[in-house]
Amino acid sequence: MEQRITLVTLGVEDLTRARAFFEEGLGWRRAAIDSDAIAFYQCDSVALALFGRTALAEDAGVPDSGDAQGDAFIPVTIAWNGRSEAEVDAAFAEAVAAGAEPLKRPTQVFWGGYSSYVRIPGSEHLLEIAYNPGFALDAAGRVTLP
Amino acid sequence: MEQRITLVTLGVEDLTRARAFFEEGLGWRRAAIDSDAIAFYQCDSVALALFGRTALAEDAGVPDSGDAQGDAFIPVTIAWNGRSEAEVDAAFAEAVAAGAEPLKRPTQVFWGGYSSYVRIPGSEHLLEIAYNPGFALDAAGRVTLP
Repeated sequence: MEQRITLVTLGVEDLTRARAFFEEGLGWRRAAIDSDAIAFYQCDSVALALFGRTALAEDAGVPDSGDAQGDAFIPVTIAWNGRSEAEVDAAFAEAVAAGAEPLKRPTQVFWGGYSSYVRIPGSEHLLEIAYNPGFALDAAGRVTLP
Repeated sequence: MEQRITLVTLGVEDLTRARAFFEEGLGWRRAAIDSDAIAFYQCDSVALALFGRTALAEDAGVPDSGDAQGDAFIPVTIAWNGRSEAEVDAAFAEAVAAGAEPLKRPTQVFWGGYSSYVRIPGSEHLLEIAYNPGFALDAAGRVTLP
């Protein structure tokens, strides 16, 4: 897996308040691709997203109360995006071979992409490995939001 | 506050295992500035750090069991770095004026920098606002780890 982070998603309780903080409070500009359910902010080579905490837990397939192994749900995901579904399959296999617990195998998802989740060894943190046809990655792997 | 993320720090239970996953498992290269207590990985314009979960809670001044307001401790911090202590003071004031709960006022810290923490409105997430004399920021605000 190339050394990069594409997206950092914070699961928040009150999306309206969190958006207002970044946009009205700090003056950050939201990307054009967001919706009522999610907001994206381009931060140079990485994107920050604000998403509902419950929705994030559902997306990762980890109950907000924690999973069956007793691991907590941490409402943050770090996403590594590939350039194709094949890159996601390869990166997911590489992460699992390296000891990451598979949480969601690569799957076509409602937003039009292809997404998977693993848990980072030695931690309760979620790593998403995904392909999003709407997020262009340049040769260096930098994401540019529409 | 300029629109950027400088550092994403994951608080982990087992730093040795988490490092081995990224370095031996995925082949990521650690930056030269790390120590036994923290590992840094340059990811284009942002840095990823692995730090002990307990140490991260102590750094933010939030007990791992949560704070007095009943907010949980989420073992991840997003850091916005400025180019000087004065920029940290200004950004901290801006964030608090925008409704962020102040958790730690800008303070000289043991690692030689100047750091503060707020809680992002509408969430339990921690935002660090800091100056690190060892982390050069270029004109665009991109960090380059030594």
